[in-house]
Amino acid sequence: MYHEIAISLRVRYSETDQMGIVYYANYLTWFEIGRTEYCRALGIPYTKWEEEGVLLPVVEASCRYLSPARYDDNLTVTTWVEEIKVSSMRFGYRIEREEDKKTLAEGTTRHAFVDKEGKLLRRKHPFYLWIQKLIEEK
Amino acid sequence: MYHEIAISLRVRYSETDQMGIVYYANYLTWFEIGRTEYCRALGIPYTKWEEEGVLLPVVEASCRYLSPARYDDNLTVTTWVEEIKVSSMRFGYRIEREEDKKTLAEGTTRHAFVDKEGKLLRRKHPFYLWIQKLIEEK
Amino acid sequence: MYHEIAISLRVRYSETDQMGIVYYANYLTWFEIGRTEYCRALGIPYTKWEEEGVLLPVVEASCRYLSPARYDDNLTVTTWVEEIKVSSMRFGYRIEREEDKKTLAEGTTRHAFVDKEGKLLRRKHPFYLWIQKLIEEK
Amino acid sequence: MYHEIAISLRVRYSETDQMGIVYYANYLTWFEIGRTEYCRALGIPYTKWEEEGVLLPVVEASCRYLSPARYDDNLTVTTWVEEIKVSSMRFGYRIEREEDKKTLAEGTTRHAFVDKEGKLLRRKHPFYLWIQKLIEEK
Repeated sequence: MYHEIAISLRVRYSETDQMGIVYYANYLTWFEIGRTEYCRALGIPYTKWEEEGVLLPVVEASCRYLSPARYDDNLTVTTWVEEIKVSSMRFGYRIEREEDKKTLAEGTTRHAFVDKEGKLLRRKHPFYLWIQKLIEEK
Repeated sequence: MYHEIAISLRVRYSETDQMGIVYYANYLTWFEIGRTEYCRALGIPYTKWEEEGVLLPVVEASCRYLSPARYDDNLTVTTWVEEIKVSSMRFGYRIEREEDKKTLAEGTTRHAFVDKEGKLLRRKHPFYLWIQKLIEEK
Repeated sequence: MYHEIAISLRVRYSETDQMGIVYYANYLTWFEIGRTEYCRALGIPYTKWEEEGVLLPVVEASCRYLSPARYDDNLTVTTWVEEIKVSSMRFGYRIEREEDKKTLAEGTTRHAFVDKEGKLLRRKHPFYLWIQKLIEEK
Repeated sequence: MYHEIAISLRVRYSETDQMGIVYYANYLTWFEIGRTEYCRALGIPYTKWEEEGVLLPVVEASCRYLSPARYDDNLTVTTWVEEIKVSSMRFGYRIEREEDKKTLAEGTTRHAFVDKEGKLLRRKHPFYLWIQKLIEEK
């Protein structure tokens, strides 16, 4: 585990379901916001990577739901890199409610590095080198 | 008003909110399913149009919510063309619950015809001619 | 038109579609965030109103899409009250991109005031009086 | 693994993202449709369970994404019960494209059995007994 980047978000009404809590698929959307901000915080927004032709489709996702998030809760999404290889990487996430510091969910996503045609990148590419460098600097 | 195309769908749990009813933005998603199936029923799936370089971004949408849809309701979405011009068209929609035939919502969407660069089509294009022909045949 | 409340949000990857722009139903979700923050800014969060038994289901919504929002855009959602009556009210919205101050969309939502059983409120209720008072104070 | 229940669905435009494929969180929504139809196929719609006061919040979810689903694809979602205990159960899912029979994703969700107050059910309850009976009958 290297850097951790924390961002805040507030639960939207649209994210609740009739159980009165947040619908479970939305946590994966929050994870995605976490990794977007992770990339931005480290210096290169994900939009740039897409423009450069490096895409990161998700190949695996998992989430443990510990306590439900509710409408209007202020949440912290903390994101870090769990592993980075030439052809894939894994992010880790933790979601807490700001009010009581309770951990609501934890999860991971694994991503492939592919080009615009969807072909797996097999050589060291800028995104890989950039993350590696950040790790070594620490 | 010309053809009407009716399709069925069942309300998903994810579409509800904490009021216990369907979140209002989801009706627009159902409208989109209605027009997808409208195009398919008339002979040319919308995927083909995108491949041919004719896109239909929404430029206006409206919905009147008459009675709430609920989880697991079976709905009928009825779609028709309200107007067609060279550069734009308007679809109309009606959403009913199958069980009691109650009308739950009515709406319209207006679309521009644009090419892949987002430029408005100003000459008669295949999509326009095709819809026009269908109208005349009736 | 009375108070205007402006909030910022950033476009999520999940909000885009394969046209490369934001899917049209998501603007209604942003409107909802706008009115949530409107209520909070005026002093009483919408969660409180739900607890007090005053619900505001949407009875009408409309949106004009002027220019597409894209992934990672920073947007401003400006919300105001267009009209308030004992049994219903209407919010207005404007969505701008912060970078170039371009207006991307404008819309309105009309809401009924109902109790927890879904019955229309017909007498002056706290929410109505509160908004009225705010208007008079200005 | 016991019964398998297969249902069909068609990918919605709203489910795509700017990568031109389905946004990853939507697979979890499809899983939910799978388990809704699983319950219905076995004789008791999930709406009934909620009415009876037995809720099944998700406590864990995972998905492996093998090949991307695209707009307008016809998919089969196959659902089965992987495990059932008094206080929790686990569903398994497989998503295939009907056209080429390709498996696009596989996943699981684990659920707690709770009452309307969110308290874990610790004694044998009707839902548990019902599923158990179905298993023994085979």
